[in-house]
Formats: sequence, C-alpha cells, structure tokens
Amino acid sequence: MASVKVGLIGAGRIGSLHAEHLAHRIPGAELVAVADVAIEAAQACAARYEVPLVSGDYRDLLEAEGLDAVVICSSTDTHAQIIGEAAQAGKQIFCEKPIDFDLQRIDRALQAVEEAGVKLQIGFNRRFDPNFRRVREAVAGGQIGRPHILRITSRDPAPPPLSYIRVSGGIYLDMMIHDFDMARYVMGSEVEEVYAAGNVLVDPAIGEAGDVDTTVVTLRFANGAMGTIDNSRQAVYGYDQRVEVFGSGGMIRAENETADRVVLSDAEGVRAALPLYFFVERYTEAYIAEMEAFVEAVQHDTPPPVSGADGRAPVVIARAAARSLRARRPVRLDEVDAE
Amino acid sequence: MASVKVGLIGAGRIGSLHAEHLAHRIPGAELVAVADVAIEAAQACAARYEVPLVSGDYRDLLEAEGLDAVVICSSTDTHAQIIGEAAQAGKQIFCEKPIDFDLQRIDRALQAVEEAGVKLQIGFNRRFDPNFRRVREAVAGGQIGRPHILRITSRDPAPPPLSYIRVSGGIYLDMMIHDFDMARYVMGSEVEEVYAAGNVLVDPAIGEAGDVDTTVVTLRFANGAMGTIDNSRQAVYGYDQRVEVFGSGGMIRAENETADRVVLSDAEGVRAALPLYFFVERYTEAYIAEMEAFVEAVQHDTPPPVSGADGRAPVVIARAAARSLRARRPVRLDEVDAE
Amino acid sequence: MASVKVGLIGAGRIGSLHAEHLAHRIPGAELVAVADVAIEAAQACAARYEVPLVSGDYRDLLEAEGLDAVVICSSTDTHAQIIGEAAQAGKQIFCEKPIDFDLQRIDRALQAVEEAGVKLQIGFNRRFDPNFRRVREAVAGGQIGRPHILRITSRDPAPPPLSYIRVSGGIYLDMMIHDFDMARYVMGSEVEEVYAAGNVLVDPAIGEAGDVDTTVVTLRFANGAMGTIDNSRQAVYGYDQRVEVFGSGGMIRAENETADRVVLSDAEGVRAALPLYFFVERYTEAYIAEMEAFVEAVQHDTPPPVSGADGRAPVVIARAAARSLRARRPVRLDEVDAE
Amino acid sequence: MASVKVGLIGAGRIGSLHAEHLAHRIPGAELVAVADVAIEAAQACAARYEVPLVSGDYRDLLEAEGLDAVVICSSTDTHAQIIGEAAQAGKQIFCEKPIDFDLQRIDRALQAVEEAGVKLQIGFNRRFDPNFRRVREAVAGGQIGRPHILRITSRDPAPPPLSYIRVSGGIYLDMMIHDFDMARYVMGSEVEEVYAAGNVLVDPAIGEAGDVDTTVVTLRFANGAMGTIDNSRQAVYGYDQRVEVFGSGGMIRAENETADRVVLSDAEGVRAALPLYFFVERYTEAYIAEMEAFVEAVQHDTPPPVSGADGRAPVVIARAAARSLRARRPVRLDEVDAE
Repeated sequence: MASVKVGLIGAGRIGSLHAEHLAHRIPGAELVAVADVAIEAAQACAARYEVPLVSGDYRDLLEAEGLDAVVICSSTDTHAQIIGEAAQAGKQIFCEKPIDFDLQRIDRALQAVEEAGVKLQIGFNRRFDPNFRRVREAVAGGQIGRPHILRITSRDPAPPPLSYIRVSGGIYLDMMIHDFDMARYVMGSEVEEVYAAGNVLVDPAIGEAGDVDTTVVTLRFANGAMGTIDNSRQAVYGYDQRVEVFGSGGMIRAENETADRVVLSDAEGVRAALPLYFFVERYTEAYIAEMEAFVEAVQHDTPPPVSGADGRAPVVIARAAARSLRARRPVRLDEVDAE
Repeated sequence: MASVKVGLIGAGRIGSLHAEHLAHRIPGAELVAVADVAIEAAQACAARYEVPLVSGDYRDLLEAEGLDAVVICSSTDTHAQIIGEAAQAGKQIFCEKPIDFDLQRIDRALQAVEEAGVKLQIGFNRRFDPNFRRVREAVAGGQIGRPHILRITSRDPAPPPLSYIRVSGGIYLDMMIHDFDMARYVMGSEVEEVYAAGNVLVDPAIGEAGDVDTTVVTLRFANGAMGTIDNSRQAVYGYDQRVEVFGSGGMIRAENETADRVVLSDAEGVRAALPLYFFVERYTEAYIAEMEAFVEAVQHDTPPPVSGADGRAPVVIARAAARSLRARRPVRLDEVDAE
Repeated sequence: MASVKVGLIGAGRIGSLHAEHLAHRIPGAELVAVADVAIEAAQACAARYEVPLVSGDYRDLLEAEGLDAVVICSSTDTHAQIIGEAAQAGKQIFCEKPIDFDLQRIDRALQAVEEAGVKLQIGFNRRFDPNFRRVREAVAGGQIGRPHILRITSRDPAPPPLSYIRVSGGIYLDMMIHDFDMARYVMGSEVEEVYAAGNVLVDPAIGEAGDVDTTVVTLRFANGAMGTIDNSRQAVYGYDQRVEVFGSGGMIRAENETADRVVLSDAEGVRAALPLYFFVERYTEAYIAEMEAFVEAVQHDTPPPVSGADGRAPVVIARAAARSLRARRPVRLDEVDAE
Repeated sequence: MASVKVGLIGAGRIGSLHAEHLAHRIPGAELVAVADVAIEAAQACAARYEVPLVSGDYRDLLEAEGLDAVVICSSTDTHAQIIGEAAQAGKQIFCEKPIDFDLQRIDRALQAVEEAGVKLQIGFNRRFDPNFRRVREAVAGGQIGRPHILRITSRDPAPPPLSYIRVSGGIYLDMMIHDFDMARYVMGSEVEEVYAAGNVLVDPAIGEAGDVDTTVVTLRFANGAMGTIDNSRQAVYGYDQRVEVFGSGGMIRAENETADRVVLSDAEGVRAALPLYFFVERYTEAYIAEMEAFVEAVQHDTPPPVSGADGRAPVVIARAAARSLRARRPVRLDEVDAE
C-alpha cells in the first residue's frame, strides 16, 4: 500500500513529537513537508528528519503536489481556519485538540470538512492508551454490567507557564477537556449536565490570570449514570492519570503507569516507582497509535476513530463547566449549546 | 484500675456485636446489664454473656446501682430521648450514629449531656480503622502538605431491606453519614457547602420508597479544599471502602482490606481476593478500638475521641445533601443549620 | 457441648499467648490449670486469667480431676517426656513444635500416644494462616495443575538471643522447621532429599555458637517437584513470610500481611506499609485457629489436623539439612531416618 | 557524530529484531549489509530495510568497504569462528549469547578480539531492562546493605521446538545462561559453586532429548552470599521474569511487566493483566538499549558494557550446573574451568 504523504503544520513541542513518529515509527507514513510561522522551527524540524519542503506559511503545504494529509499542531486559535482551508484543498486532516473555543467556528470548520468529503481526526491521544482502551472495551462489552459511577483523576506534575494559562481558554478547555473526552469514550453515553467546584490552591498567580488550578466536576450522563473528574495543576509525585468505572456487575480501574515494577523494602518502608512524569513519557505509545490509526484510515478510506463531532462535544462540556464554576450552579449542556 | 460497668440498651445486630466485645475483648469493661424492648433479645444476649441484669425497659438500667455507662444501640428515633435520660441519671454514654435526624432534638440531647457533665461518644467506628487513622495522621502531620482534594468511595455489597430504607432517613442520613464524618475526620476542616447528584440505578423499589441508591456528592471545605464522595447500595464485588487525600505535598490513599494476600496466576489472568464482604468483617477491630477508647475515656476521665458535636455535624451535612438532591443546586450548611 | 478443660504446661512467651486465647478467645475451652518450673510465671499467668490450679510441677496437672487436655509449651527438651506421661494419664495433648531433636525420643512419645489412644496435635500454627491455607487448598484442588516448583521465603526481623541459639538445635530445627512443615503442607508430597547451603552473614557470634544465620535449602519431593527455602535471621524490614507454588496450570503466591493498605505518594516515591513485625503480630489469628481446631477435635472426637507424624517429619528434614550443610552434599531423608 | 555502519550476520528471528532497531530506532546506526546462509532470509531483510549489500556469505561483509561493525545473530556453533574472523578484519563486534558451548573455542575468540584491539559486546539484553538495571544500581549503591540472598525466577511461556532443544546445549546453556549473567550483574560478585536439581515435568519428549525442563539451582558467591534460580520451560500465565535481592539493609524486587495496569473487580474476584507474553514483548526496549549502548561504545571508543569475559563466565556456570545435575552433587566452577 502506498505510504501517506504528510505535511506538518506547527513544529512546536507537540508538532515535533508527531514529526518524530511520522518519520521513524509509522511505516505507512512519510513526512514530506513542514510549516511553521516561526520558520526556524520548521527548518530545524525539516533538517532533523530530512523533510524536502519547508515553509513559514502553511498554505504552501495545502498547494503542494502529492501531499495527502496535514497534521495541524499550530496554536489553537488557528485550528478552525486551517481545517477549513485544508478541507477545501482536499487534504486529509489530523488536528490537535481543541478544535477551537468557539462553537460557531467549530461548526463552520466541521461543515467545510463535510462538504469537502475529507477525513478529520482530532488528537485525543488518551483514547489510544492501552489502559483506557481496556477500560472502554470492558464497559462496552458489559464486563461491569451497566455503568453507574465514573471517577477520573487527572493531575499534572507542574503548571504550564502563566503566559500559556492566559490564552489557553482556562483549565476546562485546556486540561479537563481530555477528561471530558475520556468520560464520553469510556461511558458510551453523552454528558447532559455538569457542576463545577474550583479554587486557586496551587499558585495565586493562576487566580490573577483568571483561572482556577484545582477543580472537581460532577457529570450527569444521559443513561442516568453520574461521574466526577478532579484536576490539579500540580501533583508533586508526577502525572496522575486514573480512570475508574463502577457498574451493576463490577468495577474496572486503570492505575498509573510507572517506569519500572521494582519494590524496595527497608527499615523505613516499602517503596515503589512514581508515575511516569508527564504526557510525553506516559503517552508516547498512545501518540504513535493515534497517528497510525489516522494513517490507516486514510490508506483504507475508513472513518477516523476520533471524529469532528468527538472534537466538538468536549468543548461544549468545558464551556458548561466554566459557566457552572462562575454561576455556582449545575449547568445543562443544551443551555450552552443553544446559544 | 476498676473496670467500667456497662449496660447495653438495644440487643439487635449492632448491639450484639458490642456485647461480644464488652464481654470478651475489652479487659477494662464489664457487661452487667442488657435491655431491649424485645425482651427475648435481651434475655438471649444476657444468657450468652452471663449478664446478671436483664430488662425490657432501658430505664431499669438507668436506675441500676453501680452501672457506670450505657451503650445505646436502640433504634435511631429513641437515641436522643435515651441520651437525655441517661445524662440526667449521671451515666457515661456511648451512642450509635446518628444521634437523631432532627437538629433540635440533637441539640436538646447535647444540652442535657453538657448540663450533667457526663461523657458522650458517638459510634463513628470507621475513625478507628487503622487505614483511615493512618490517613488522618498523615494529613494532620503535614505529610501531604495542605490538603486540596478528598475522594471517598463507599459502596455496600447489598442494599438493606426496603423496610429499613423507608425509615432510615435516606441514603445521606443512614449511609453517607459515615463518609461525611470521615471527610471531617481526615481533612481537619469543616464542610461549608454540598452538591448532590443521585439516581435510582440499583433497584426501582428504592426509588418508590422515596430514596436514591447511587449518589455522588461534592463538598467544599472551609479551608478551600474540595472533595467528592460516591455511594452505591450495591457493589457486587463486596464492601468498597476507600479514602484518598491529595495535597500540595503528595497524596495518601487507603485501599480495601482483603481476607488474604494470595495471588493466583493462570492462563486466564492474575487474580486476588475480593474486599472483605461488609462492615462486620471489615470493621471488627475498629468496633473494638472505639469501645476501648470509650472505656479508657471513662477510666481516665478524659474527653471521648468522638464528641457530641462530631455526632451532630454529619447530620447537618446529610440534611444539606438531601436538600441539594431535591433542589438540584448546591446548598450551604448554614442554610440548613439556621432553620 | 461441654467445654474442654485445659491445663497449660509452661507459661513463658508462647505459653502466655495460648493462655490468653484459651481464656478469652476460644468459647469451647476453659483454662483450669497452669504449671511452670518457674512457679512465679505460673502464678502470674493464673492470676491474670483467674485459673484455679497452679503448680511448679506439671505432674500435678496430669493428676488433676476433670482436666481434659494439656497444652505443652515447656522447653523443647521436656516435650517428649511430658507427652509420654500425659498420654499415660489419658490427657488429650497439644504440644508446641518441635516434639524433640531426637528421632528415637520422638518415636517413643508417639508410641505412648498411640497406645493410650489419646489425641496429639503439634503446634505448626502457620498451617492455620488464611494465606497459606488458601495456597494449600488451591494446590490440593488442582487450581495450578500439578505442582512443579515451591518457593518459600522466611526471614525473621531480628535474631533470637545467643543463649537461645546455643540450645535451639540450630537454624534448621528451630526456624526452618516451620518451612519444612509448610513445604509438606502445601505440596501434599513428601520430601525425599535436601541440599543446604548456609553462611554466617548477620552476626559472627552466631557462627561462634556453631550455627549459620543465612541459608538456602533445595528440596526434592516424591512427586518429582522441587523447591527452595531461604531463611535469614534478620530482615530489617520485618517478618518476611511468603510462599509460592508454581505448577503445570499456573502459580499461586502468598504475599506478606501488613498493618494497613495505605499508600503515600510524594516527590520521593510511593510508599506502603512494612510487613507485620513478627510472629505474634502476623500469626495471632492462626494461633487462635489452631487451638480452636484442637478443642474441636477433642469435643467431636475427630483426628487433630496436625498429627504426631506431622510433628516428626520436619525433624527428619531438618536433621538431613543440617547434615547436608556440614557435608556439603545432598542428603536423602532415608539416610537420616535409618539411623 | 558519524553514524556507525553495521552489517547483520544472521537474519533469523533475533537478527530481524536487531535489523528493525538498527534501521528505525537507533539514530546513530545505519544498517548497510545483511548476510545469511539462507540467502532468501538475507534478501527479505534487506528489501524490508532498504539495505544495499546482501550476501549468503558473511565473509562478504567482513571485506566490505566502510563497514564499521557486525552484529552476529547466526547459529551458536558459528559465533566463535565469526568473532575470530571479524576481529581479524578489524570490525567492531556485537554477538548474541552464548559465545559458544566450548571454553577453548571461547578463549580463542576472545584472544583474537584482544589481539585485534576491537570491541566485543555480548547480547545479554536483560541487563538493559529498566527493572533489572534498577535492582543492580540499588545493590551496587548499597541501598540494601550487603547482599545475602538472591532469588531469580525465570520461566518461559512455552517450550521451544524439540529440534532446537536437541542442539541448544541444554537448559543451562540456552535458557538459564541469561539468569547466570543476571546473577553476576546484580550481585557484583562471582559465582564459585553451583548445585542443580532438575526434572522432566513439562514434556517427556524433552527428557528423551536428553534435557530437563524444570530446574532449581543454588549458587554460592565469592562474597559469601547465596542464591537460587528456578527455570521452567512452560508457565501458562506467560513469561515470568523476576529478580529479588535480600541484604543486610533491606530487599529489592523486580516484579513482572504487564500490558496494562487495569484491575477488574467483579463477583468472581479481582483480576489484573498477565505478564507480557515472551521476550519480544518484554524486552523490546532492552534490545534497543543494548544496541544503542554498543553503537555509543563504537562512536565514543569506550568499552562496551557487556564484555567478552561477561560472555564467557555464564558458560562456565552453565557447564558446572549441567555437571551438578548429572553428578547430583555441588560443583565448583574451577573444577569445570580447569579442564
């Protein structure tokens, strides 16, 4: 089968990660072009992976001959625009989450994708982690009966820079959005209402930037189940990524991954390894697997496993959560989505 | 030191448990009297433990010569009344939770205790479980820094009879009340506001009885921390009793106790023991330890470790949670307590 | 059913333990007599548990009216003699391990028991630990297929006094004898040959006393299976008591018991509780269960679960191991037993 | 730094694994030649990784211009010969274990390497597993004090074909040799004496082929420590690879790696994932790391981390173990090595 020729748009941290995988770890893909508004970043990436086409303007990629697909890793505020243009140019599209903060802009982008008949996969990488996939499959396969209670714990080892927090859209749109997607993924039911409690407990500067750094959110699902998600910007013991689903027939839990399975016992106690430090360490295989899935969907002309609608739904939940936090009351999703 | 002469009021399931411990497991105590409105239950208990004084009326115990203390295990609606009379009779008092559903009746009972200058200990046995005690001590000792997020999981292996559910005061007053106490115990901070989501997912008959059987509650604490508690009336894998506190310096978790530490690996998988089945199996040592603590408080004339105020506070939280469930909004405790 | 009237012979550490259980934890037993050559020890024990008959001479117990059984906890060199006399006096006998170091003395004692038609149970308490019982039942029930490899780890938290080591019979007769019994118990097959490697690594004074403090022993079983046992006199992290059986259909492992199931994660690592410190903490329930089993065997006139032959067999293995250590070659049990 | 140009000799199962890593996972290496006596295997491998030079004769690689190093994955009986010739040709050498079954042939090969002044690394991949590396570092760093007892469990999920067993040199040379290397690696002390007990418990045909399939070996180390290794050709629950070192200051254990950290609790029990199935799944990262280490040693002209002497020592231990099994007595290594 012919390899898929991919252009990378945005060569920052996450873009470089995808470049490495496209160049070395995914046999079916070929990285043939890189664009970044910071042309030096594009050039460095291209040099590293021997990529022939380099540009400071992503439009050069959309016009390139023989380019099958684009992987969009630019800043969030450009996603919707680039999706629209890439769709019009007939390219297959992989786009990092979130599509956008604004539902109307998302809808216009999804509309363009639909009209062009191209594929769009959103970068919810955690769905490809073997732990969470196993949880989803167990729930979907009825191994715990009907799901009743979901518990997600998701804590970062350290807060991002304040400069990022100021433009990130807030903790629900930049961090918990992954957990909202996970909730939909493992429960197989839509969220209907959220209630958010949040506070500034890690760093007052985050509060001054208008955000909270610690939050607990309650979810009500269409199937009657309930769930909670907690987020903290700072877990000193590392990246804490756990999911638990309780149901009429049992419970399934995904515990943290660690660097090794070594246990040291001495007079002080019994000690084991910390969780893997952050998303690069924890989700390397998941990043590869999501890109493989995208490449396969292109090669076999099948629907990508994380659709545009899957990209839109968590944004609605995040916006409802943000409103709930401010209004100190539960907020139904249709209240947010109707506007 | 002279042993404490104890009279048991109420010889049902939990009363029999305390009788066994008072008779055989607590060297400092002597079980000298048993009363139960069902006189046969009192007689059976007395015969089993060779107790000299038996009665169908607890007032006989309050008037008995040489009786130092009473252990109240009668039905909840009699607790406040008996506490008041026992206090007036100058007896030291151990009373099962909850004191009452009604705050005014609780306040009158506590007032009687204070005026009489007797001791009152409330039966929140889980505080004496070594796991939760270790969690509390770690939090109080600063081992996880300042606490930010509390997570309590508390699920029963099977629902109680519907006849009980109809008079129990509902899931917040009969079941989650233990978790509200645990929240105060491990966090060392008072709950200020609750938000409850609940549903009938286990048995429609529980819904017809006016209660929910599955619920998730969010807590806001005075110190800025937040927490969630989830309850289910039915966990098919047994009694699920876990507590986790996350803070600025780390996290501490208490996992379930099991009957053994045996692991079987075969071609099907790796299997370990289920959690201990229910409260009798899980909390035997905790029941003994709470009664030892009461006996010691009487012997040394020190304050009992779970006070009348500790008995009152979870009732306020439970009432706020019940209101939140009905009103579908967060409820501040002072709203409930002011009435 | 009438309670079994028991006389305790030897009121030292292990005798006191049994006294506590006989007095308070075993409903079917009544502790009615205590003897110890150190009469003060007997008197202290009798005072504590309100025992009517006290003596400095165990023969007073054997002659006592209405005494059903004796529990022999005196020094090892007196066991065989007392068993013989107690049998002749028609008493049911519980005797601490080992019966004796000398096989001929053991055989004479067992002969006396058989002739008198009384019961004899040997104090291999670990058989009554729920973990090891679960392992045995799994193996006996075929849950791991045919057993191929046994691994026992058995390490004490601290060495006994040198005065004890000088008379204990050595590490194989005083410490590993428990593991030899465990090997027979879980494997359901007899040991045929042993090979012992040992060294003095903990304390040179143990070597000067003629013993080793660290040893690894290989076992060959009649059914073709093999096994290893390792012992150390000093594990700084506490009492390490693990058993693993590997077979054609799987593997079963019993891990250590701990005081709690609490896990603390901080920037330094993930920490859990140490194993329970020593045999009193670890095997309390097993000590009670073995005595309950003895009392039940007496009450129901059934064979006790650990027979005289079960008491003899590990002594043979221990003697073979000691010879193997000195001779630096494998030693068959029939070589030792034939002498 | 210039990339190391590597030729692969032997394109079977393990050779293909190394080819994949050299081609895609090790930036510093370039796979430029492949040889295999089965020329089709060499051609298939070359086609897959776009390797320019292909041959049915490894000598073509030794004569090739610009080839820096060879990776020898041919059958064991050719290793010593090819090492000798590659050394004379001035190539850097990575060779799979074992070097040979015959000590004189090994010594001649090592002599050739020394005279030529080239590097030789032996493929003991498990040293590069993060678990075992962590164990070694803890022991070397004194975290468990002085090591006293080593326990290695090493069981394959299924036996190799009988055709392999007939030429493999037997269980000690083809399977336990890895564990002998691990023993030296983690203990930091040489083995002086071994005692082997073995049996045919898995498949009688293995016995007919002159080998055992289940074995337990005792090791005595120069530093006074002792150890045991057990091997089985068939663990139905998967590849069981555990190491434990006990010492004066504590214990360190490496448990098995699993595909996920998911735990399912239902009415039947609590279930977790099986160990990773076999060496390809378990040691992928270790295979990459050992080859990276070799490439780095070549690039930086530093000694490779697993020397020729490290390749020779386990062969001596294996031969002593095989002799011990037959002779049913402990065998000192100098007895074997002196011949």
